[in-house]
Amino acid sequence: MTSTLVTNIGELTTNDPELGRLTDAALVFTDRVEWVGPASAAPAADKRVDVAGRAVLPGWVDSHTHLVFAGDRTAEFEARMAGQAYAAGGIAVTVDATRSASDQELTANLRRLVAEAVAQGTTTVETKTGYGLTVADEVRSARIAAADVDEVTFLGAHLVPPGADADEYVALVIGEMLDAVAPHVRWADVFCERGAFDADQSRAVLEAARAKGLGLRVHGNQLGEGPGVRLAVELGAASVDHCTYLSAADVDALAHSSTVATLLPACDLSTRQSLPPARELLDAGATVALAGNCNPGSSYTTSMAYCITTAVLQMRMTVEEAVTAATLNGAKALQRTDVGHLSPGARADVHVLDAPSTTHLAYRPGVPLTHAVWRAGLRQR
Amino acid sequence: MTSTLVTNIGELTTNDPELGRLTDAALVFTDRVEWVGPASAAPAADKRVDVAGRAVLPGWVDSHTHLVFAGDRTAEFEARMAGQAYAAGGIAVTVDATRSASDQELTANLRRLVAEAVAQGTTTVETKTGYGLTVADEVRSARIAAADVDEVTFLGAHLVPPGADADEYVALVIGEMLDAVAPHVRWADVFCERGAFDADQSRAVLEAARAKGLGLRVHGNQLGEGPGVRLAVELGAASVDHCTYLSAADVDALAHSSTVATLLPACDLSTRQSLPPARELLDAGATVALAGNCNPGSSYTTSMAYCITTAVLQMRMTVEEAVTAATLNGAKALQRTDVGHLSPGARADVHVLDAPSTTHLAYRPGVPLTHAVWRAGLRQR
Ligand SMILES: [Zn+2]
Ligand SMILES: [Zn+2]
Repeated sequence: MTSTLVTNIGELTTNDPELGRLTDAALVFTDRVEWVGPASAAPAADKRVDVAGRAVLPGWVDSHTHLVFAGDRTAEFEARMAGQAYAAGGIAVTVDATRSASDQELTANLRRLVAEAVAQGTTTVETKTGYGLTVADEVRSARIAAADVDEVTFLGAHLVPPGADADEYVALVIGEMLDAVAPHVRWADVFCERGAFDADQSRAVLEAARAKGLGLRVHGNQLGEGPGVRLAVELGAASVDHCTYLSAADVDALAHSSTVATLLPACDLSTRQSLPPARELLDAGATVALAGNCNPGSSYTTSMAYCITTAVLQMRMTVEEAVTAATLNGAKALQRTDVGHLSPGARADVHVLDAPSTTHLAYRPGVPLTHAVWRAGLRQR
Repeated sequence: MTSTLVTNIGELTTNDPELGRLTDAALVFTDRVEWVGPASAAPAADKRVDVAGRAVLPGWVDSHTHLVFAGDRTAEFEARMAGQAYAAGGIAVTVDATRSASDQELTANLRRLVAEAVAQGTTTVETKTGYGLTVADEVRSARIAAADVDEVTFLGAHLVPPGADADEYVALVIGEMLDAVAPHVRWADVFCERGAFDADQSRAVLEAARAKGLGLRVHGNQLGEGPGVRLAVELGAASVDHCTYLSAADVDALAHSSTVATLLPACDLSTRQSLPPARELLDAGATVALAGNCNPGSSYTTSMAYCITTAVLQMRMTVEEAVTAATLNGAKALQRTDVGHLSPGARADVHVLDAPSTTHLAYRPGVPLTHAVWRAGLRQR
């Protein structure tokens, strides 16, 4: 593979504990990062890209999306903006559309959204099943996701299908469905929330998945305080996502655990909830990630920049905390050590901003700032 | 001039009181809109553009920016995000940089920002002087602005220059400076706020400008309640901008006046202020515009989409109200009848979204949705 030298980097965010943030820097990569250092000391490479003082950072790691779906929910969104409260039940609309769609339609929609994300600097995407809710439809979703996305999560426990008995459905999820889906996925997740799955049901799902060798993730504390965070920490989940409503005990539990608190601010704003207590989590010492939660119901965005802007302007995170949350800590939420940073040896996921520093991600709200993107050393934009 | 037929429009927002919003529509334009109607009845044209079901609307009218400046204020922004309050005094930093810059540098920076705005769908831009604050520097700013921007506003009364006496400076603004700048501008504006100009000083500026034949605009009620809105309404200003902190009497005064209330939500968020009471203004019957307030201190954005997203998700405006505020009502704030709508005869400022409806501007936060832009019939993107 040819090597590329990126030089004249105004500000290089490596997320490497030794290298930190460099100015007047250069970077050499093949499919991996080969060398990082001062521009003046850069070795030769096959190709040379002068970024004219722009900022360079690792590609975004979007550790929470729901991209295997069909249809959209514009009408529901409009109703909500006219004052109707967000109800998780809207998910059933997407379940119907997804079951009716062909494999080709689902793949095309997934690829459209992944491409849109990549064009905005995202180079690692996690996505979930959860709009199938039958054995066959969940397997299909997992297979379709795995063909195009880095990390796939089984979310059979997204919603009790309309008309089904909750406990019978959980038995299906942790039995036949889990058996069929597990070979296609690395993770399992559960929507632990009033209106979805309670603490006992959620625990059953997570324990069965763990027994099957899957890593654990939890949707918790989105619509109010609840058992999601406690359960995630107790079971050693990689991440608990949403964390919009946290008790002091939840914050404390996260701060003393290896479970990442993944915040989804575009979702909170799109559902007119409060924003999550990022400052409290950070001050307590928790590891905070930011993710987009792209889905057609509650957060139809692929813009990690919007999440970062919101985190800085409205959640009192610093730019550095927000950028770390959208790169390195997204990787931690996926237990990936090869992405989210630009240490030598990391996957060459390189994001060049049309700005001299990452500060502009919050200083210039809404302005598209992605100038160039490489993923595993291949130019994407 | 050649005519262009845009056909297969999924949703056409005309802002025409008779035509309203059309589905399955077409549009023919030269430099003006020539014809609007159902796709099936469209007349022939020299060129044909099939937009494949996308939404089409008038280009954004950004009725409030400050684009004649040099330098940036990244460090001040970072300090503010670390907890330091916004102080108008930071403007003096930009004044120094602007005075030191060459004409070529100021023009290049202005053009960069206008191009960035146009690429995001903005087709009419107002901009202000106000970083010169000497007769020569204000004239220079006005001249540079007028060469590239639709509407130019004299804002000599942006800030009392450091070290100057306020009343002496006002005498300069309404005397020699106004005489010299007036030939280059259509509007005059004053920053009526604690720390800038008080009610008497603001009145003196506005009355002198009116006597000189200029239209009036006011910066008011940004950092707290104050006399700005009252004064704007009393003097029949075209617009009063910010309106972040309004008394019930202010809302009532705006509702019973022809003065547009121009809201600048990206500024409020970038300075960690409250968001303005849009719902109260609309419910009372005031005319509400949205603008970007692009400037390097308090709102460094060219993204009208970000303003709309924020207005819908966080200020309880409907998508339709927000889109009207960023097009037709922006034009009203500039007393322009030829832009902000797509009635036959309007300037052909056409914005095609990469989405089936304008709802996606809020439903898909942060996602760049501009697909194509024409300004006065000329393709910009
Ligand atoms: Zn989710
Ligand atoms: Zn302003």
